[in-house]
This record gives sequence, structure tokens and C-alpha cells, in this order.
Amino acid sequence: MNKETFPGMLPNGGHFLIDSLPHAQSIGMKVLEMARAKATVMVPYAEHLIGDPETGVIHGGVVTSLLDNASGLAAFLAFDEPKSIATLDLRIDYNRPAQPGRDLIATTYCHKVTRSVAFIRGTAYDESIDDPVATSVAVFMITAHTRAMQGETK
Amino acid sequence: MNKETFPGMLPNGGHFLIDSLPHAQSIGMKVLEMARAKATVMVPYAEHLIGDPETGVIHGGVVTSLLDNASGLAAFLAFDEPKSIATLDLRIDYNRPAQPGRDLIATTYCHKVTRSVAFIRGTAYDESIDDPVATSVAVFMITAHTRAMQGETK
Amino acid sequence: MNKETFPGMLPNGGHFLIDSLPHAQSIGMKVLEMARAKATVMVPYAEHLIGDPETGVIHGGVVTSLLDNASGLAAFLAFDEPKSIATLDLRIDYNRPAQPGRDLIATTYCHKVTRSVAFIRGTAYDESIDDPVATSVAVFMITAHTRAMQGETK
Amino acid sequence: MNKETFPGMLPNGGHFLIDSLPHAQSIGMKVLEMARAKATVMVPYAEHLIGDPETGVIHGGVVTSLLDNASGLAAFLAFDEPKSIATLDLRIDYNRPAQPGRDLIATTYCHKVTRSVAFIRGTAYDESIDDPVATSVAVFMITAHTRAMQGETK
Repeated sequence: MNKETFPGMLPNGGHFLIDSLPHAQSIGMKVLEMARAKATVMVPYAEHLIGDPETGVIHGGVVTSLLDNASGLAAFLAFDEPKSIATLDLRIDYNRPAQPGRDLIATTYCHKVTRSVAFIRGTAYDESIDDPVATSVAVFMITAHTRAMQGETK
Repeated sequence: MNKETFPGMLPNGGHFLIDSLPHAQSIGMKVLEMARAKATVMVPYAEHLIGDPETGVIHGGVVTSLLDNASGLAAFLAFDEPKSIATLDLRIDYNRPAQPGRDLIATTYCHKVTRSVAFIRGTAYDESIDDPVATSVAVFMITAHTRAMQGETK
Repeated sequence: MNKETFPGMLPNGGHFLIDSLPHAQSIGMKVLEMARAKATVMVPYAEHLIGDPETGVIHGGVVTSLLDNASGLAAFLAFDEPKSIATLDLRIDYNRPAQPGRDLIATTYCHKVTRSVAFIRGTAYDESIDDPVATSVAVFMITAHTRAMQGETK
Repeated sequence: MNKETFPGMLPNGGHFLIDSLPHAQSIGMKVLEMARAKATVMVPYAEHLIGDPETGVIHGGVVTSLLDNASGLAAFLAFDEPKSIATLDLRIDYNRPAQPGRDLIATTYCHKVTRSVAFIRGTAYDESIDDPVATSVAVFMITAHTRAMQGETK
């Protein structure tokens, strides 16, 4: 990660994007890794995230939130300088239930940035990325290109 | 709502589908209305749901969870008898930020059920359904048609 | 349709958008109706559109092209003045096969326009709009706001 | 490609799936390569496929048809024995216009098959797969598991 050319130069290296969000905190999201246009984010298994009390499987909404946030982070990591973004649309495909007791990991990659949007693909898994729990496609809108943003993120 | 022909006959009229989910509880989801193939579900505005501390706007993941759950409920309300379902895929389009301080409401409708899937469209709004915060399209997989389910839901 | 406030004022009332496209012509697309933010477009049943020779069912790609084009037209009809647009993303849900021998109709509605994108929902059917063959959700990017466009479309 | 374990054993190695479709023929689709769960399909640049006469750019509907067909083929190539399939839903993201004069190629991969559905991701490009024209996500429904199918495809 080149600290001179992208958000790595921000005080806490982009973690603020995820770690400071109240909702992200409430589900325990943690950034594991960041690289150019790429993010890996984790949600540790926890009882209050269970969607089906019979099976202990995590709620689909958690998978979705994880992929949404990790997608935004990948977009952010694809920019040469900080920009303000918002999810424009998101599609999630649920391949299989997450395994009870296992942490959930999402890896996302932003393969294209235009003047106004960023395209991101993601995969959520609990054991191997080749056996996904869910996959995602997102388009984020670039809502501002201001320098002011750098101040905001301190 | 004809109590003899669909899930209305269950002890708490389908509320169990939403109200008993730990994750749904954690974001405060409440069923407002149910009819044949149709649901209206609400999330009251709350501080721990905020996604952007600067503006007080609710996190997109909450909008998504709300639409996902309300979609599943609409599918359930489209069946003649209880069936087990799981989200197969979900697309959310975010039209505008939710207004800080306002409750979020989702109305969903299941327009088609086949032997193995159900198709649902939804709209999330905070003031008027004609000025949506987000819209959704979902396909749910019907995972079981067993009578056993009726026992599960008591 | 108010000819003074939107594309109705163009020489052939917006038909150029669909009728002059080589690919649209090759599948026989015809605009049936236009109103503010709304379009109805038709593809007459034809042998060269068949996807499954055994059943005579029209190819899914025709349904998709129809919905894509009708979505673009609805976006165009939602603007106060001509703008250049391009499909950013499109999701189609196929509810059932089209009936062999029947014309295919798509009705689309643009429910939201922002500075840079337009959101459109559509339904394709062959008999009743309440029994869809397919439904769609599209986001179109507004690629230019120039006056020059008016010249282009003559 | 193991001819004993999947459709490679069919008379014309799966090409029938694409090459015999009237609509696929009308846009000139050609299978370039097949492997386990993977397909590469091409549409040669042609004047009657042009969507925008000003620029010579191929119509978005062609990109969509290509990805739809190539997705179905990848699903088919993921099965151990022939099954009948139909597109359940499809999402296409358009990253940039195709370059006029260049052939369009789609590469698709089916990463998951369950008892009733198959999940496929695809990329359409005209020069390098790393600079996509469009990407896709599809879910196909498995509509029949009969042996009769093998007779159908001869």
C-alpha cells in the first residue's frame, strides 16, 4: 500500500471509514486488510447477529451490510485522493447459509472508476473464498471531489 | 386478511417472522401491516442506526435489512400454507438519503410465486411512498414445503 | 403529453430514440405510447426472435433488449430537456416464458431523476400487466446536458 | 475438458446450445472455448448490431444477449449431466462503451450449483478482460433433470 498515493495517508489508514460507523460497530465489523482498490473486512460471529435461532445462522442483513461496507472501502481505496461516495445500487446473491460459529469475511475489489461512479465486486465467505456464502456487485456514486473531505476525516 | 387461507392463522399472525429475529430486534423492526402477498414494516429512527455521524443519516445497511425482511414477509404472505424460504438474491437501488430523525417504512409486494421461487418488489420511504429512499427487487427460494414448519413457528 | 415541456417537442416525438436504432429495428421494436416519464414499447412476435425452436418461445435476450430500450425512453421522457443517456446497470427478473405467438409489450416508468442518474422500473407482458413475463430495474447515467443534443436528434 | 463427465460428450460439444438459437444466430454469436463451468463466446462486430449510428458503438442489448447466453452455457458446463435451464435473473453493469469495429468477447464462470439453481459471473470485453465493457451476474433455474434432454439435443 503506497501511503503517498491514496487514503493510506489518512491518520488511521482508512479504518475510520468502517470502524467509526455506529452501525458497523454494532455488528462488530473490522478491517483486516487494505490494498489498492481492494479491501478485506470481517464480522466476528456473535449471538446478537443470529437470524435463525433454530440453526444459529447469521442474519442475511449482516452479510449484506458487510459486503456493502467492504465495497465502499474498496472504491475509496481505488481513488487517488479522497472523494465522498454513496451506494447507488447493490446486488447480493446468497449462495449458501454461513456456518454457525464461524467469522464472516468479505473481500472486495473496485475494477473500474469513472468520473462519477465506481464499480465493485465482492465475495463473502467463512472458510474459503472459493466456497462463497454470498457474492455482490455494487455501483457507488461519487458525490463530491472536494479537498474539504480531508479535513472531515481527521 | 383472510385468516383461513394464509399465515394469518398462525398464533401471532406472522409477526414472529420479523419480531423474533435477533438482528431484526437489534435494529427495532416492527410489522405495521400485513395483507395477501403484501407487508409494511417499520424501523424507528434511532441513534445506533446512524451511518454518517456528520448528518445523522441512517446507515444503508439498515435500509437493506428492512427491505430484505419485509420482502421475505411478503413472500410468506403470498403462500397458501407456510413454507420455508431464504433470500436467493436481492437488489437495492438507493434513490436518496433517508431524512435524519424520521422513521423508515418499507412496503413490499410478492407479485409471483412459482413452485420453487417467489419474486418481490419493495419500496422504502420516510414520508411518501412516491418519494422513495430506496427500492428493491428480490427473489426468495422456497426451501421446504413441509408440514413440520407449522410446528416450528408456534 | 405536454409538447412544450419535454421531448414531445422533438420532430417525431421521441420515436427516433427507438425506431432509428438498427438493433431495435432488427427485432421490430415499436413505440406504442409515451407520457411524462412513461413509455410503452412493443415487439411483434416473429420467427427470427425464437429462442427455443421446440416451443416457439421468444429468446430472453429480446425481452431484455425491449426492457432496456423502453427504460431509456422512460428516462428520456422524464427530463425537462433532452439529455444524453447510457445504461449504467440493468437487472431483469424472468417470471415465466412468453407465450408463443403473442406480441411482447413493455411498460416502463422513471420514478426518480437526480443530477447524474435516472432510476427506472419496467414490466414486460404478453397479455396482462398483472401477469408479467419479466420485470426490470435500471439505472441510466446522464452523460451530457448539452443543447447540442437537440441538433443531433433531428 | 473431460469428455466423460460433462456435456463435452454431446455430439457437437455444447455448441448446439448457442449456435442453433435463431436469435443467437441473428447476432452472430460463436462459441470460442468451453471448459468445466466456463465458457468464452464471441459476437463479431457488424453494422446491423450498431446501437448509436453517430459513434458506431454496438447496442447494449447485444452485450446483454451475449452475457446471458454465455452464462447459460457456463451453467450447462458445470453440470455432470445435461439439465434444462432458464434465466431466472440477470444483472448487467455497463462499464464503458464497446469500441467500434472490435469483436465482443464474453467469458463466464459458474461458481456454484445447487439442486435448483446455478450462479454465474461474466465479463464482456473487446481488448483485455481487465478493461471490461460490461460485467454480469446471473442466476439460472434448473427446470428439469430428465434423461430425455439428451435426446432433445442431438
